[in-house]
Amino acid sequence: MTVVISNFLKNAPFFKSFPNDAIETISAQSHIINADKGKVLFVNEDPADRFYFIISGWIKLYRETIDGAQSIVDILTINQVFGETAIFQNDIYPFSAEAVEDSQIISLPMAILKSEIENTPKLAMDMMSSMARYRKQQDQEIENRTLKNAPQRIGCFLLRLIDQNKKGRVIITLPYDKTLVASRLGMQPETFSRALNKLKDYIDMDVKGSEIHIRNIDDLVNYACSACSSEFPCHDMTA
Amino acid sequence: MTVVISNFLKNAPFFKSFPNDAIETISAQSHIINADKGKVLFVNEDPADRFYFIISGWIKLYRETIDGAQSIVDILTINQVFGETAIFQNDIYPFSAEAVEDSQIISLPMAILKSEIENTPKLAMDMMSSMARYRKQQDQEIENRTLKNAPQRIGCFLLRLIDQNKKGRVIITLPYDKTLVASRLGMQPETFSRALNKLKDYIDMDVKGSEIHIRNIDDLVNYACSACSSEFPCHDMTA
Repeated sequence: MTVVISNFLKNAPFFKSFPNDAIETISAQSHIINADKGKVLFVNEDPADRFYFIISGWIKLYRETIDGAQSIVDILTINQVFGETAIFQNDIYPFSAEAVEDSQIISLPMAILKSEIENTPKLAMDMMSSMARYRKQQDQEIENRTLKNAPQRIGCFLLRLIDQNKKGRVIITLPYDKTLVASRLGMQPETFSRALNKLKDYIDMDVKGSEIHIRNIDDLVNYACSACSSEFPCHDMTA
Repeated sequence: MTVVISNFLKNAPFFKSFPNDAIETISAQSHIINADKGKVLFVNEDPADRFYFIISGWIKLYRETIDGAQSIVDILTINQVFGETAIFQNDIYPFSAEAVEDSQIISLPMAILKSEIENTPKLAMDMMSSMARYRKQQDQEIENRTLKNAPQRIGCFLLRLIDQNKKGRVIITLPYDKTLVASRLGMQPETFSRALNKLKDYIDMDVKGSEIHIRNIDDLVNYACSACSSEFPCHDMTA
């Protein structure tokens, strides 16, 4: 099992500055979890002594009010890590995590991550780069909610799903169901449906189930990115 | 001048893990800038070789579309640092910065910060803690825009300005003018005025210029925090 785990980690961007012996040590104390759709892995403000790596599936990070209203923090997939920032926040998870598809994840001990960060300056720099990139994405999300209308926000979401060098006709497949896309974008499902329809007024496109067929991707760029402080392709995805 | 600067830095939270000799080295290569209201210090995507510490005044961090629409990233004041995250983003500023009041700031060389982070693990850990705290605040901001109505968002903003242990009658002074508070909250000035008025329907309060008099702070907590995933007092301000 340790070998299986260490092979996953060795190929993951998050672990690229981990010394080899640290990968072996952390793998030996890790295990694989099969999380069925709907499985809650931890809850906001739970004490945090593990962090997680996604082998397959989709994990939703979210926070919830007493009334059960949810705000989605992020939705992550293969090769991504979550829960690790708790080490900088008094070892308390800053959100809840739930599998939104059947998922396979690796549970890893936080203590080893902590000591490795303290001992490996390169790893600390990597983590800070990744946190800075995430910060820019959050700034972008806040900007989107301030300056873009709902169809533009959907357009921006779609453009971030594709190879940003593509030209001409493009088919974009939604990564998860529409209700979840709506909450990811902070919209009610009805608002999302209406806005997706409205997008058709501006660009030549068809919606076929979870596939969005777009005649010319430049039309989508012109429409969605006109209300953005960045130019396409999106810098925060490449930097 | 170096002594004046090093005295400011020694008392600032950001520099608390800086070794003393590093404070002296960085101070010797720094200088004080008097930035009048309206002065733009740098622009989004400018190359970044300096970062800044605020001695007095208010600095707005923002991004702008081609049409001139602005999204406020943050508004900072005394003892806070900005521009430093550019070292993790290819030495490019991820936003623009402008003085929104007459301000005095220290301009510091980024190169020394970079080498100190690489050489002082404690400093790297401090920076990561501060980035994680900021990340949680951004998550909170995104949540606010998803789950709270405009009067609740104003209430949340006000509660974050005061000593969160206060009880009973409280007078809150807006830190900068109402137009800027509105943009900080991602609202049009008219929306802000209307929402501030609407807040009076829910809690016993008076607005006198930039002062908000609230009869019982618990009323504001009950109203604004009912749509929040966190409890009052706000964890992200204390953690």
